[in-house]
Amino acid sequence: MKKNVLIIGAGGVAQVVAHKCAQNNDRLGDLHIASRTKAKCDAIIQSVTDKGAMKVAGSFTAHSIDAMDTAAVAALIRDTGAQIVINVGSAFVNMYVLEACIQTGAAYLDTAIHEDPAKICEIPPWYGNYEWKRRADCAAAGVTAILGVGFDPGVVNAYARLAADDYLDTIYSIDIVDINAGSHGRWFSTNFDPEINFREFTGTVYSWQNGAWQTNKMFEVGKEWDMPVVGTQKAYLTGHDEVHSLSARYPDADVRFWMGFGDHYINVFTVLNNLGLLSERPVKTAEGLEVVPLKVVKAVLPDPSSLAPDYTGKTCIGDFVRGTKDGAPAEVFIYNIADHEEAYAETGAQGISYTAGVPPVAAALLVADGTWDVKTMANVEELDPKPFLNLLNQMGLPNRIKDAKGDRALSF
Amino acid sequence: MKKNVLIIGAGGVAQVVAHKCAQNNDRLGDLHIASRTKAKCDAIIQSVTDKGAMKVAGSFTAHSIDAMDTAAVAALIRDTGAQIVINVGSAFVNMYVLEACIQTGAAYLDTAIHEDPAKICEIPPWYGNYEWKRRADCAAAGVTAILGVGFDPGVVNAYARLAADDYLDTIYSIDIVDINAGSHGRWFSTNFDPEINFREFTGTVYSWQNGAWQTNKMFEVGKEWDMPVVGTQKAYLTGHDEVHSLSARYPDADVRFWMGFGDHYINVFTVLNNLGLLSERPVKTAEGLEVVPLKVVKAVLPDPSSLAPDYTGKTCIGDFVRGTKDGAPAEVFIYNIADHEEAYAETGAQGISYTAGVPPVAAALLVADGTWDVKTMANVEELDPKPFLNLLNQMGLPNRIKDAKGDRALSF
Repeated sequence: MKKNVLIIGAGGVAQVVAHKCAQNNDRLGDLHIASRTKAKCDAIIQSVTDKGAMKVAGSFTAHSIDAMDTAAVAALIRDTGAQIVINVGSAFVNMYVLEACIQTGAAYLDTAIHEDPAKICEIPPWYGNYEWKRRADCAAAGVTAILGVGFDPGVVNAYARLAADDYLDTIYSIDIVDINAGSHGRWFSTNFDPEINFREFTGTVYSWQNGAWQTNKMFEVGKEWDMPVVGTQKAYLTGHDEVHSLSARYPDADVRFWMGFGDHYINVFTVLNNLGLLSERPVKTAEGLEVVPLKVVKAVLPDPSSLAPDYTGKTCIGDFVRGTKDGAPAEVFIYNIADHEEAYAETGAQGISYTAGVPPVAAALLVADGTWDVKTMANVEELDPKPFLNLLNQMGLPNRIKDAKGDRALSF
Repeated sequence: MKKNVLIIGAGGVAQVVAHKCAQNNDRLGDLHIASRTKAKCDAIIQSVTDKGAMKVAGSFTAHSIDAMDTAAVAALIRDTGAQIVINVGSAFVNMYVLEACIQTGAAYLDTAIHEDPAKICEIPPWYGNYEWKRRADCAAAGVTAILGVGFDPGVVNAYARLAADDYLDTIYSIDIVDINAGSHGRWFSTNFDPEINFREFTGTVYSWQNGAWQTNKMFEVGKEWDMPVVGTQKAYLTGHDEVHSLSARYPDADVRFWMGFGDHYINVFTVLNNLGLLSERPVKTAEGLEVVPLKVVKAVLPDPSSLAPDYTGKTCIGDFVRGTKDGAPAEVFIYNIADHEEAYAETGAQGISYTAGVPPVAAALLVADGTWDVKTMANVEELDPKPFLNLLNQMGLPNRIKDAKGDRALSF
């Protein structure tokens, strides 16, 4: 049994995490949120207060932190008595926060792989570059570290495990498809931090096929997918965290990640990328000022958190898993539909933040009650998916399955 | 009779001006070139030396100057004994250099209207905002100032005057069409300083029609033009210096400027403009750095002067002038074809710099021999076009005319 949660980060996903922790504070205890800018934490707590989200009377406290300062994070964990840390800060801080958890014994949860700000696209094996090197340390210290427990990676890993365990005898392929069919009404915007968003697509695209890493360029391989609710949507082969961990578990299956993009997004991306405006390497202006172009692009684009009030439409994210069942070819699609307007009404954040922010709180509840308190490092597919998916059904992310027997809700 | 030339600026147009002055130094005397960065002047003089461009033995000297420092420019004019200043520096320096000429008595020539760096697009009357306010001062001091004597404005103003004087009895319209059908082989580049290039298109488009200023948005009005050599080309209504001065002389005619753009240019421009990356107003990055987006775009784009070696193809710039002749409707097209590769072979610059850089040297020769030494301020259409066009025929910019009698060379 663990209690008291420290949230690291104060962006759109942290907004959702905060609301969902508050809605479950009877089981999670004292709540804390820390970010470089304390005012952003204050604003999130104000939003929780405004919506009356706290289930029972309790504390929710804001802190200022440099999450790259391990000693400071460890001190904050000790001062607050937090036994669970949900890291939804920048992808650059993971290893520093994980180290603080190992030092203090707090459980660690995050939603994306660690990245080095100086590298555009890490080369696989992604988890192997940083996180998995600390697996033995977590086990030795008895520290629970659940990696990548957002929606994708996270819920989609649980979907893959469930398909492999319960619906198929052998699996040939796992195709994770992420479609945002919503509209933010702006001429152009990324849905989360442009610096992170664009970095995903400026490097090589990795997929796991025929038992080996395959490389492509971004937007080189596109495919139309027939999806429930959102209809037929074009998605492109993209590198993504869970391709690595799932291919490590299911090396005989092809593992691919597909992200939906409209022609408009691709055009804007292509122009910016070809001109060199998505580069993280500094350029010098005629006046001698050193500037990172990508940071200027980020500065002119809408703040993704400002999109939420006007966001309409739905997301559909799920796993097409193919293999055999009882000797015959079979396919299942396990998925979730989320609605931007409903997400905003409940948490003040849009649907993409919502799908990323609810799962780590479900995981925190499973760590709190011991179900997932595994006292070592684990990716989501290594854990029992059913209690997790059941919690998501109750917490606003209902799971569905579509196979030869039809399209239906999925619960246990 | 005037001699000794000071060139202000060291970009692609200055490169051409330097070569053409050198080719005519028997009539122009000592040559000087000054820019903020003296090394760029040294490189231009080296190019002149490498090509053996000096017609007779003589001096060509490089200087460092802040062209916005009128006292420094005036001192340089006195020190060098320059009686003719060809200002092909940034459009932001015109009024400072003109003032230095008024103080010293040197003749002043430029190729574009003055611009205030803080304004995107000046509102008409363009020449009336700055230059023409000094007309009386030029006349009082007996200073020759020839405004806008590049190709467009410049040669196209002479074409309009010639059409009105010699080929038509009355004129209804002057349509200046500027087509660059060349290819630089880069994914994207502007042909001259991106800061100046984009600023032309981010504001309102002004044209003179039905006796009044009309406004449109950029790329709102497009029209296909059937042009000699380069074929049918789409060009868009654009604001341009000469629309003002020509409409002041021919207020009863419609005066329009059309610039050719490919779909690729328009797409890149539209993306950058809609994102706010063409703004000259500073933005602040997440790290707190104040940056002007347009200056970063400039920093990532190719240096226009680097395009010259690979540039192929031709430009076609000319005036479609419509009116009546002997009581019947009539139209003439007076134009020039320039070739990028020939321009580079001769001067080390591409065709667009060439068309802009040759005319001010022709004008300098006419000031030197007294033909155009008018001792007041004048736009090109106020001066006798024939000696100017004859000189251009000899200097690498042959003039042609196409009308009911056919397509033929134009000389006097």
